[in-house]
Amino acid sequence: MERKFHKVTFDRIPEEKRERILAASLIEFASNGFKGTSVSTIAKAAGISIGAVYKYFPSKEDLFMTVIDYGYQDLDRVLLEIVGHDDDIFVNIERILRAAINYSREKPQVIQVYLHCTTEGLPELAKKMSQKIETISARYYRSLIADASRKGIIAPDIDEGAAAFFLDSLFLIFQFSYACTYYNERMHIFAGDGGDDDETMIRRFMQFVKKGLGANF
Amino acid sequence: MERKFHKVTFDRIPEEKRERILAASLIEFASNGFKGTSVSTIAKAAGISIGAVYKYFPSKEDLFMTVIDYGYQDLDRVLLEIVGHDDDIFVNIERILRAAINYSREKPQVIQVYLHCTTEGLPELAKKMSQKIETISARYYRSLIADASRKGIIAPDIDEGAAAFFLDSLFLIFQFSYACTYYNERMHIFAGDGGDDDETMIRRFMQFVKKGLGANF
Repeated sequence: MERKFHKVTFDRIPEEKRERILAASLIEFASNGFKGTSVSTIAKAAGISIGAVYKYFPSKEDLFMTVIDYGYQDLDRVLLEIVGHDDDIFVNIERILRAAINYSREKPQVIQVYLHCTTEGLPELAKKMSQKIETISARYYRSLIADASRKGIIAPDIDEGAAAFFLDSLFLIFQFSYACTYYNERMHIFAGDGGDDDETMIRRFMQFVKKGLGANF
Repeated sequence: MERKFHKVTFDRIPEEKRERILAASLIEFASNGFKGTSVSTIAKAAGISIGAVYKYFPSKEDLFMTVIDYGYQDLDRVLLEIVGHDDDIFVNIERILRAAINYSREKPQVIQVYLHCTTEGLPELAKKMSQKIETISARYYRSLIADASRKGIIAPDIDEGAAAFFLDSLFLIFQFSYACTYYNERMHIFAGDGGDDDETMIRRFMQFVKKGLGANF
C-alpha cells in the first residue's frame, strides 16, 4: 500500500477544512519552497493553530510531501484521462501538450511546487520523489513510442527511452513556461512573438516532434 | 554599464578571500535556495563575520545576484568559446551539448543555483534575471539556425525562434540531469540504461535534433 504522509486525523476532518489547509500549503510552498516556508505561516494562512498542523502531519516534510502527492496525482489524472490508447501517437501527443498548457495556466502553483521539489532542497528525498512522480509518464510515453515504431508510424531506429525523455523534457519546459515567471519570460526571449500565441507554439512543437521522431508525413 | 550588486569594498579585498566568499555562498545557495539560506550560515562557512558580509554586499539579495552573475558568465564563456562560427550547425550543437554535460558535472552548484533562481522565490527579479541570463544564448541559437536555414542545411520551414527554444530547452534539461539529483534520476527512469552512457545519450540527442530540424543527412 502507498505510504501516506499525513496522520489518520487529517482524513477525519471536514473536506472543506482539509482543502483549505492543502490550498494554503500549496500557495506558500509554491512561492517559497520547502525551506523558505514555515509551518506557522501555513497555519496562519489556513486559519488554524500550529498545534493543529502537527495534529495532522508528523512534520513539515510530511505536509510538503502530502501537497506534492495531491498535486502530481491531479496532474497525472488530467494528462492520462485525455489520451486514447487506440489513437494516433501524434494526436495523443498534441492532446497532452494542450492539457499541459491549460493545466499550467489554471493551477500554476502545482507546477511551481513541482519545480521547487526538483531543486536540491531535499536531497535525501529527491530520488524517491523522482521515481514516484516520473515513473507513470515514463512508462506511458515509452509504450506510446514503441507502439508507433512497431506500426511503422515513426522511424524504426528511434530509441523509445531516449525519445520519451526528450518528449517529456519538452512537455516539462512548456509547463514551466506557462506557470513560472522566469520560464515564461525565457520562452518569449527565445520564441519572440510566437511565444504569445498558443496555436503557433503548438504547431511548431508538433512539427519539431514529428520530424524528430521521423514520422512519415 | 552593467549594474554591480556588490560594493566597491568587495573588489578591494584579496582575490583568495573574494573567491572563498563566493564559493561558500555558491554552496549554500545551491543547496538551500535564496530563501532557505541565511547570511550568518554563509559568513560562518566563509570564515568571516556577518558584519563583513554587509560591508561587501548591501543585502542578501545582492550577494545572491553576485553569485548568479559569476555563475552564468562562467557558463556562457565556456559554451560560447567552444563554438566556431564557420562550422556546421550540428558540429556546434554537439560541442555545446558536450560542454554543457562536462560543465554540469564539474560545477554542479552553478546549475543548482540557476535552478533555484528559476523558481518563484524572487518573483520581482525573475523577469530581469531571465532577460540577463537567456538573451545571449537565445540570440546565438537563433542566428545559428537562421544561417543553417539560408544555407539549406536544415528545412526551410523551421521557425528559428521556436527551434532555438526547443533546442535550448533540451540543453537545459541535460544540464539539470547531470547536476541535480531529481533530474538525474528522472533521466534514468525515462532513458533506462542509455542514461548511464554519455555517448549513447549524445548520439540519440543528435539524431532527434537533426531529424527535428529537418537536416539533409
